[in-house]
Amino acid sequence: MDELLKPLTEGNRRALSRAITLVESTRDDHRQRAVALLADLPQRQALRIGLSGTPGVGKSTFIESFGTMLIEQGMRVAVLAVDPSSVRSGGSILGDKTRMETLSRNPKAFIRPTPSSAELGGVARRTRETIRLCEAAGYDVVLIETVGVGQSETLVADMSDLFVLLLAPAGGDELQGVKRGIMEMADLILVNKADGDLLGTARRTVADYAGALRLLRKRPQDPQGFPKAIAVSAATQDGLDKAWQDMRELCDWRREQGFFDSTRADQARQWFMAELRAGLLSQLDHPQIKAQLQKLGDDVAKGALAPGAAATGMLKRLGRVSAE
Amino acid sequence: MDELLKPLTEGNRRALSRAITLVESTRDDHRQRAVALLADLPQRQALRIGLSGTPGVGKSTFIESFGTMLIEQGMRVAVLAVDPSSVRSGGSILGDKTRMETLSRNPKAFIRPTPSSAELGGVARRTRETIRLCEAAGYDVVLIETVGVGQSETLVADMSDLFVLLLAPAGGDELQGVKRGIMEMADLILVNKADGDLLGTARRTVADYAGALRLLRKRPQDPQGFPKAIAVSAATQDGLDKAWQDMRELCDWRREQGFFDSTRADQARQWFMAELRAGLLSQLDHPQIKAQLQKLGDDVAKGALAPGAAATGMLKRLGRVSAE
Repeated sequence: MDELLKPLTEGNRRALSRAITLVESTRDDHRQRAVALLADLPQRQALRIGLSGTPGVGKSTFIESFGTMLIEQGMRVAVLAVDPSSVRSGGSILGDKTRMETLSRNPKAFIRPTPSSAELGGVARRTRETIRLCEAAGYDVVLIETVGVGQSETLVADMSDLFVLLLAPAGGDELQGVKRGIMEMADLILVNKADGDLLGTARRTVADYAGALRLLRKRPQDPQGFPKAIAVSAATQDGLDKAWQDMRELCDWRREQGFFDSTRADQARQWFMAELRAGLLSQLDHPQIKAQLQKLGDDVAKGALAPGAAATGMLKRLGRVSAE
Repeated sequence: MDELLKPLTEGNRRALSRAITLVESTRDDHRQRAVALLADLPQRQALRIGLSGTPGVGKSTFIESFGTMLIEQGMRVAVLAVDPSSVRSGGSILGDKTRMETLSRNPKAFIRPTPSSAELGGVARRTRETIRLCEAAGYDVVLIETVGVGQSETLVADMSDLFVLLLAPAGGDELQGVKRGIMEMADLILVNKADGDLLGTARRTVADYAGALRLLRKRPQDPQGFPKAIAVSAATQDGLDKAWQDMRELCDWRREQGFFDSTRADQARQWFMAELRAGLLSQLDHPQIKAQLQKLGDDVAKGALAPGAAATGMLKRLGRVSAE
């Protein structure tokens, strides 16, 4: 049994941090240790909330306010970020702990900075594993934040129990800027900044999104009234408690109907298959194989070798021809 | 040497059809034979033109008119279709030969109906291989048509020498309906139906698209004036010759600058890697393995087994643990 397991399940933050570093590592021995540790984790569940929103919508302030509120209600909250843009830039623009200063100092909150470099698949794996570690460490809510670029929303929705879209007050034109696919994933749309001068605009925006949501086909996993749009203000905390009530109502209903568990089961199955495929393909990353692929690729590029024949030859060398 | 090779390279249409049926087959022995045949093909080149356009834009009529014009100029023309929607519906709505009746009766044209079922990756492989077969059979131009849904444009652009977007005359609002990514792939935008009452609208649409194209960053692979938008009428054949001149001008320039060959080389390399990855993953499709995966997946879904541990176990059984 891994030495991290006991302190981790007792809620020791340092053990949790070290365990996350372990799952983030690409070293072979670390990976083996991470897999064994994950296999030994107790079956604790946190509520996994995916959160997306375009930059400038006030996501950090929302997480600060919302997270602090949950902690005041007696919960422990973990915040993770999925930021594929940081894959390119080599880290998020602002450190996650700087963005959420109050929350990061709260002993009942755990904020994990975005890992600095990996491809999207790697980010997904590490985030899924980190969620499991946070659950085992006794966190009640895990917020998985994404910056809302490219495929990151789908990725986050696929590892969450519910998916929340944080949007800014806006005119009807901008409403159409939200991609239909993202709207369809949302369980709850929160229109932020519903305070001061923007209050009226925010309310109209809520009505607009509510109308748009009604146009989407009703999903079997939703009770009456969901997906829904409501107004919140991260700055004044108005509406945050309502948002939390809605999330719980939705989850309670899904638990009763069996959707909650069946979704988690599907997600776990997909995770397994994704891991398996990644494992099979990972052999192409080994230095020796890479050199051979480069050489074969050169011959193919020159036209000296057909792509299919080159692939078949390489598969044979990898000992897979029997499985072809 | 395959018995199909000689008649195929002599331009025998029946041999070409049979060879395509061979590459479309998923039977193991057929696949082996297809790989061997493809490896033996002579290095003939056709101009590979990718063509996309939304339904209703007059794509079939355009291919009829444009193809017939090329044939009148002494060329042989092959038409292939990439239609991922037929993957779901089990065939295109109208048979390809019905859609292009005149062309399909022309002995210098070869129209291959959309294969009726396969996943997108399979469609891509078969289309790439079919292009090679058409080239070997002496066709001068291969038109690869896509219906313009989902990722099919990217797929087609990645197997073409140039990518043509066929659009309908439209107001400024509709212009924005063309996704930026698709615009960026286009080498030439043809605004169809520039005849009769629509002539004025078509010309304004051309100006709108030309303006939009100017806003896109200049690409190194483009000579002065490209990508460009022009008006055509498939019905009256107006502008088709101009379109063909533009295509040739672009290709000649790219050949001189080396972009033509380097793009093909990159495409071949990517094709090789795609085949290799597909080959590695294909072992998961074997019935015995599938049954094991189902059982492991059930355990994972129940929470009795961690996804990572299940994947590692399966990789070991597949004999890949040394490569992990």
